[in-house]
Amino acid sequence: MIKILMHGCNGKMGRMITEIAKQDQDVEIVAGVDKYTAVANEYPVFETISECDVDADAVIDFSNAGAVDELLDYCVEKKLPAVLCTTGLSEEQLARVKEVSEKIAVLKSANMSMGINLLLKLLKDAAKVLAPAGYDMELVEKHHNQKLDAPSGTALALADSMNEALGNEYEYVYDRSQVRKKRDVKEIGISAVRAGTIVGEHEVIFAGTDEVIEFKHTAYSRSVFAKGAVEAAKFLAEQKRGMYDMGDVIRF
Amino acid sequence: MIKILMHGCNGKMGRMITEIAKQDQDVEIVAGVDKYTAVANEYPVFETISECDVDADAVIDFSNAGAVDELLDYCVEKKLPAVLCTTGLSEEQLARVKEVSEKIAVLKSANMSMGINLLLKLLKDAAKVLAPAGYDMELVEKHHNQKLDAPSGTALALADSMNEALGNEYEYVYDRSQVRKKRDVKEIGISAVRAGTIVGEHEVIFAGTDEVIEFKHTAYSRSVFAKGAVEAAKFLAEQKRGMYDMGDVIRF
Amino acid sequence: MIKILMHGCNGKMGRMITEIAKQDQDVEIVAGVDKYTAVANEYPVFETISECDVDADAVIDFSNAGAVDELLDYCVEKKLPAVLCTTGLSEEQLARVKEVSEKIAVLKSANMSMGINLLLKLLKDAAKVLAPAGYDMELVEKHHNQKLDAPSGTALALADSMNEALGNEYEYVYDRSQVRKKRDVKEIGISAVRAGTIVGEHEVIFAGTDEVIEFKHTAYSRSVFAKGAVEAAKFLAEQKRGMYDMGDVIRF
Amino acid sequence: MIKILMHGCNGKMGRMITEIAKQDQDVEIVAGVDKYTAVANEYPVFETISECDVDADAVIDFSNAGAVDELLDYCVEKKLPAVLCTTGLSEEQLARVKEVSEKIAVLKSANMSMGINLLLKLLKDAAKVLAPAGYDMELVEKHHNQKLDAPSGTALALADSMNEALGNEYEYVYDRSQVRKKRDVKEIGISAVRAGTIVGEHEVIFAGTDEVIEFKHTAYSRSVFAKGAVEAAKFLAEQKRGMYDMGDVIRF
Repeated sequence: MIKILMHGCNGKMGRMITEIAKQDQDVEIVAGVDKYTAVANEYPVFETISECDVDADAVIDFSNAGAVDELLDYCVEKKLPAVLCTTGLSEEQLARVKEVSEKIAVLKSANMSMGINLLLKLLKDAAKVLAPAGYDMELVEKHHNQKLDAPSGTALALADSMNEALGNEYEYVYDRSQVRKKRDVKEIGISAVRAGTIVGEHEVIFAGTDEVIEFKHTAYSRSVFAKGAVEAAKFLAEQKRGMYDMGDVIRF
Repeated sequence: MIKILMHGCNGKMGRMITEIAKQDQDVEIVAGVDKYTAVANEYPVFETISECDVDADAVIDFSNAGAVDELLDYCVEKKLPAVLCTTGLSEEQLARVKEVSEKIAVLKSANMSMGINLLLKLLKDAAKVLAPAGYDMELVEKHHNQKLDAPSGTALALADSMNEALGNEYEYVYDRSQVRKKRDVKEIGISAVRAGTIVGEHEVIFAGTDEVIEFKHTAYSRSVFAKGAVEAAKFLAEQKRGMYDMGDVIRF
Repeated sequence: MIKILMHGCNGKMGRMITEIAKQDQDVEIVAGVDKYTAVANEYPVFETISECDVDADAVIDFSNAGAVDELLDYCVEKKLPAVLCTTGLSEEQLARVKEVSEKIAVLKSANMSMGINLLLKLLKDAAKVLAPAGYDMELVEKHHNQKLDAPSGTALALADSMNEALGNEYEYVYDRSQVRKKRDVKEIGISAVRAGTIVGEHEVIFAGTDEVIEFKHTAYSRSVFAKGAVEAAKFLAEQKRGMYDMGDVIRF
Repeated sequence: MIKILMHGCNGKMGRMITEIAKQDQDVEIVAGVDKYTAVANEYPVFETISECDVDADAVIDFSNAGAVDELLDYCVEKKLPAVLCTTGLSEEQLARVKEVSEKIAVLKSANMSMGINLLLKLLKDAAKVLAPAGYDMELVEKHHNQKLDAPSGTALALADSMNEALGNEYEYVYDRSQVRKKRDVKEIGISAVRAGTIVGEHEVIFAGTDEVIEFKHTAYSRSVFAKGAVEAAKFLAEQKRGMYDMGDVIRF
């Protein structure tokens, strides 16, 4: 049983992680930290990490940039592996994270979803086999109608993953309506659909002669990131000091 | 049993229609017309339509523009309903087609596929219900890597069908990567994927709050047009003089 | 602006409906009724419907069977159209509902989703066109791993919808692994997938010669029912006395 | 440029391979063997392999069991790598194939499709990551309405691939309509859809908490096997003696 300290336990993601952890027999949240303590938690909650005196195997952090410095001090002192999911860290903080990874195990990733991180790996393999055999690669992503950017960062990460595996020779094409010409072999088409409240859907296809191979990821809520954080904590609790990312959690 | 005359019976589409007709108990090809007679057919084949003395209930034409004038003469003389699938007719010929439709039943359509023509109708109904209730409409089409234009004519026809049902207030958006902004309510996004040898795939989604309704058409070969032509012939054999299209064949 | 009374406003569905209504410019929740009043609502909340003195155009009921009798009395007295979504009503209550529908407008439906109710209609049309032309119909539904029954009631309703349109001649087939034989023409195959936390996905295909037409509905949360209830209230506020269901809300 | 000898060049698959090879700059069919020589080929065709005096780097065999013995003799004599796609070999012939693989490179596989063989590998990796993290696995396959067996051999091979990677602890479930109970964790559900002329579609899903990862393979014609055979020949031309299968061609 891996004992987890939940840093930022009463925020939206903290509560999701609490929910996910309850359904997982291999982990237990033994304590939480949150400024906001007016709700009932099933574990002891401290206002600041420095007050926490509960033993844990790893900490998951989904708090805010302002609380991360104190957390890092605590982790180094307690030799506590840290899954850092808080975004918006300053340059100084990122440098500090790297520094402390020489003393403790730290995991930080652009996307915490298990599925996306698995696909990032598998697509490399698929691209190496299929692209040289003449299969074309295309990507369609779908998100809600409030999203400002297109394509999504995850779509670009998936395309980059394939492109890197192939020597970065491919050009990304976002629009085919303006020219009248055949598709170039060294293209990866990326289409962005925006509609309704779609949380996030990414579909990568490899199409050859009369054959299509499709890889698709659908997130139904942000709890896919909560799930990933819990899996990351399980993984990190058993690691030596060093810098890790979600790709390391995906062990074949 | 509907007796069909196949005009252009030894071309690619003529042979596909022959194949489809064989599997359909309600029709029989009783004769064919083709300049090229070196192959073995299971029905009598004449070099020109004027030589044909076999009685039929309808003719399907998949020949070439040059052969259509003689065909129209023959149809008027024999009072023979005509399913005209040959493309590239001249302005004069199109005018002539309209003229003869005052004497015989004529069917002509931009797309002969049953499925696409059904969707053109159903999407109107769906748009009228869902758009006013706040659902967004988006379209993704996929075709082979040799296709020059994007989006496909069929994709535009599907979008037009929804747009017309809603008073033509919608703007089509082909690329979202160049601006950083939220989707406008009065948009229909149209994405074009080009890869491998994909014959033709059209997917229309309506996405509301936590709900997606999807309509998808997949053609695995051009025989979907052959199938449509046979259904059109069955329909037309029973019609009075006049101009028809595939929408008329789709009777709920 | 349609003024809605939310009966059962602090339950899970009541809160979802409140959320949905906030995003809809055409409706406003003017008051709620709930035994549980310890939460902050943006509208006045009464413990019982009889205490409510706020004027409304329709009431949405997502409470419990025990509270429905008093609600019906209130609706008759106030001539208030009622969207009844509470399940588990007794035989007596159902008879009473029918009775009051002679005095006021009442809407009751097995499934409140707009999308599913739209598909129930469109599939009838599709079946009437495609089945006689030789297209096979198959259905695949996907739900979470805690669901006890298979196939889902909605899957059966969709199959029934097609079957009824075709004279109820089709047999439903749930398993093809036990016999070695070709598919019969008068079959509708229904497959049930159970995995993860999938809220509900229903896919109906029509497959002919080299052509597949697919209709798919995906629910990402139960708020599709909340959305449907709000649309039903908008519709019902303008109706005369009588019994209605979601099919009536779907007006082409 | 890999020089290929096409054994059985005028059969359906032989002609498909000829077509595929023409589009591939890395290979050339330098000669063919076929009893039936009445058609025009773009390369010399011999009635039997023993008459063939053209140098090649590999032979692809899509002939018939009766012609395989002579082929194997020829390959051993010429030290010619052999891609064996002919099915229905006798026990003696299979033993002979194994024997000659000690002298020359031989490739033989249950399914020649690149995509399916890639998925067989990737699904192992995905299963090892996702199953221990609580994701459920389900499989849906779709084939034409003339297919006698269900589920398809390929569906079972895909399920076996995941099951083997997980210690063969999973039970396959083909029907959930007969019992009213929750899904067991150690199940792989396999659903078979039969409709129209669908060539072959296989979809594997991994579903966890609010997340679905999908792997899908679609064959639009049997030319996916032709494509695989050509890739196999390219691979085998560079191998030492030994027994290979399509899994070896899929090199990450």
